[in-house]
Amino acid sequence: MRPNLPPVAVADRITRLRASLAAEGADAILVTRLPNVRYLTGFTGSAGLLLVTVEDAIFVTDGRYREQAGEQLDAAGATIEIGIGVAEGDQREHLRRVVARAGVRRLLLEAHGVSWAQARSYDEEWFPEVEVVAGPPIVEQLRMVKEPGEIERIRAACAIADDALDALLPRLGDGITERGFALALEVAMRERGADGNSFDPIVASGPNGAKPHARPSERVVERGELVVIDFGCIVDGYCSDMTRTVSVGEPSPEARRMWEVVRESQAVGRDAVIAGVEAAAVDRACREVIEAAGWGEAFAHGTGHGVGIEIHEDPRVSRISGATLTVGHVVTVEPGVYLPGIGGVRLEDTVAVTADGCDPLTAFPKHLVI
Amino acid sequence: MRPNLPPVAVADRITRLRASLAAEGADAILVTRLPNVRYLTGFTGSAGLLLVTVEDAIFVTDGRYREQAGEQLDAAGATIEIGIGVAEGDQREHLRRVVARAGVRRLLLEAHGVSWAQARSYDEEWFPEVEVVAGPPIVEQLRMVKEPGEIERIRAACAIADDALDALLPRLGDGITERGFALALEVAMRERGADGNSFDPIVASGPNGAKPHARPSERVVERGELVVIDFGCIVDGYCSDMTRTVSVGEPSPEARRMWEVVRESQAVGRDAVIAGVEAAAVDRACREVIEAAGWGEAFAHGTGHGVGIEIHEDPRVSRISGATLTVGHVVTVEPGVYLPGIGGVRLEDTVAVTADGCDPLTAFPKHLVI
Repeated sequence: MRPNLPPVAVADRITRLRASLAAEGADAILVTRLPNVRYLTGFTGSAGLLLVTVEDAIFVTDGRYREQAGEQLDAAGATIEIGIGVAEGDQREHLRRVVARAGVRRLLLEAHGVSWAQARSYDEEWFPEVEVVAGPPIVEQLRMVKEPGEIERIRAACAIADDALDALLPRLGDGITERGFALALEVAMRERGADGNSFDPIVASGPNGAKPHARPSERVVERGELVVIDFGCIVDGYCSDMTRTVSVGEPSPEARRMWEVVRESQAVGRDAVIAGVEAAAVDRACREVIEAAGWGEAFAHGTGHGVGIEIHEDPRVSRISGATLTVGHVVTVEPGVYLPGIGGVRLEDTVAVTADGCDPLTAFPKHLVI
Repeated sequence: MRPNLPPVAVADRITRLRASLAAEGADAILVTRLPNVRYLTGFTGSAGLLLVTVEDAIFVTDGRYREQAGEQLDAAGATIEIGIGVAEGDQREHLRRVVARAGVRRLLLEAHGVSWAQARSYDEEWFPEVEVVAGPPIVEQLRMVKEPGEIERIRAACAIADDALDALLPRLGDGITERGFALALEVAMRERGADGNSFDPIVASGPNGAKPHARPSERVVERGELVVIDFGCIVDGYCSDMTRTVSVGEPSPEARRMWEVVRESQAVGRDAVIAGVEAAAVDRACREVIEAAGWGEAFAHGTGHGVGIEIHEDPRVSRISGATLTVGHVVTVEPGVYLPGIGGVRLEDTVAVTADGCDPLTAFPKHLVI
């Protein structure tokens, strides 16, 4: 299942980041959010800091990652010095040396991705000579527009999820529990080449489906009830996300009506996706269909979100989103209706925004009755 | 495998938190770190804020969690008001109302667990009338000392990990890959009742073992080489953590010597654990054995860490730890030696600190050759 993936252009990203830095009137950024560190360096470990100045870049991590950091940064092809600090103080000295050498005067922190305590420490103890400022999410802004190699990774993750669900749907009629089905999905995705889940799967049957983020329980899936299945996997660092709602055998008329409304809402939303449209307009398109059916209050979440290195990224597709969709954005379209005591329906595809609409990365068909 | 677990006393925890608040000279705390929210409320979702004042407590979350929040807080038995805010602004108004009603003057934030951007927003926009201060990790301080019900959950998670490894070790000789073995471990733990991994398992064979945090690869485990297996699971929100290093058949004399040294270091460290001892002394005890063998530099991480709702908690067991071990602490003891190009050895147990030593929660035997 896992195709040969085209390379991703890690080394170019720091060049783009430097342009963003200049636009912010800063001459350096300390990247602390690990998904951003990964994006800029290729490093996949659980601890590391990246300092990028106008001409320099240094990545610091601890002794556990000495070998891995060397291998991964080398493979990424970026020109980044590596500093290993077994103690935190050693890491600080590596960074202070580069800050001094580069003559940094105004250093951005990722205000949304650094703790308040750590920000105070960077400002007062690590870099007291430098103006430390709360920067906007400039790496996330770069990450919103995916390169072709990134879209292919998300597509591969979506294809694995599709194929796993296709293989397992028949088991829903076998008296399987929600937990049992979730585990089977996870194993099927791993066996098809996924590195792991992009999030813990949701398998919510009958009344459990009324909780949009229910956790799988020991409840056995019964015939004629709605089952919400929301899951995804990771391929080479990129996530997929999809939801299908099905019933083993014919459900109640009300359940069928919920499903048909959400089906229509999702189709309308997906058709609204095109470069240049406001994300809020896609949300509105989905919401209008559900409101017209009288279930506006029962659609208690946004329509979707960006997907990439993280399962939830910008742009958000919601009422309050200020984003305009752009070629290379990858977003979900996932309206839902949830009725306490009865159940829920959600249908979700991951799509890549194109100049003339969208490229559906999720290909699995939508059928209510299996 | 999953025993009947005694209840945990969630409702008492807010009372203890109020004592900590008073000691900090504050009259309220906004709890933003989700593991802390879970500890204090029983809520397991992915979004929510808890405000605790001297007399009030309110939990706010979004529309997705309306049902779940009601059920979980009710089950926990804590007296906590619930505010649902579909938009962020609604959540803010719920909190502002309680802050005003309680006459809060000095509000602690979790400085280590709130982003700098969010802290600024709470200070300037949400609660401009209140003094917002950067608080220490007072909830984590409470969490360090585990109640009996918490220790039983960690013990159950450790027992599942032990049993899964016992069932699977023979497969290491079957030409299995690192990834294949990791997946088999994960499935075996889930089948035995675990809710999930406490972290992605490490299965690092031969030279891969030299990276303490290697990710499982497609490498086939060969006879006569060291395999580091570091893994754990979650039972009812509590983590386990263990490492064994084994060889299928006799390894090289150097590999055997590494293993014997780490075995001795781990035993000495475990024997050093007792209420009243400094965590740094446990680290020193482990380190001296490895230094005496000439591999001090090759032990490039701390000796251990607390385990609980999070896989890495306080107290840290390291050179620079300032903690004194106390009855009810649960920590790992996991020294290692890593030789680039050759491989690694790490042995790790999770133990509960007691008045006269420690209660080993990991029971799996330590044998080099299988």
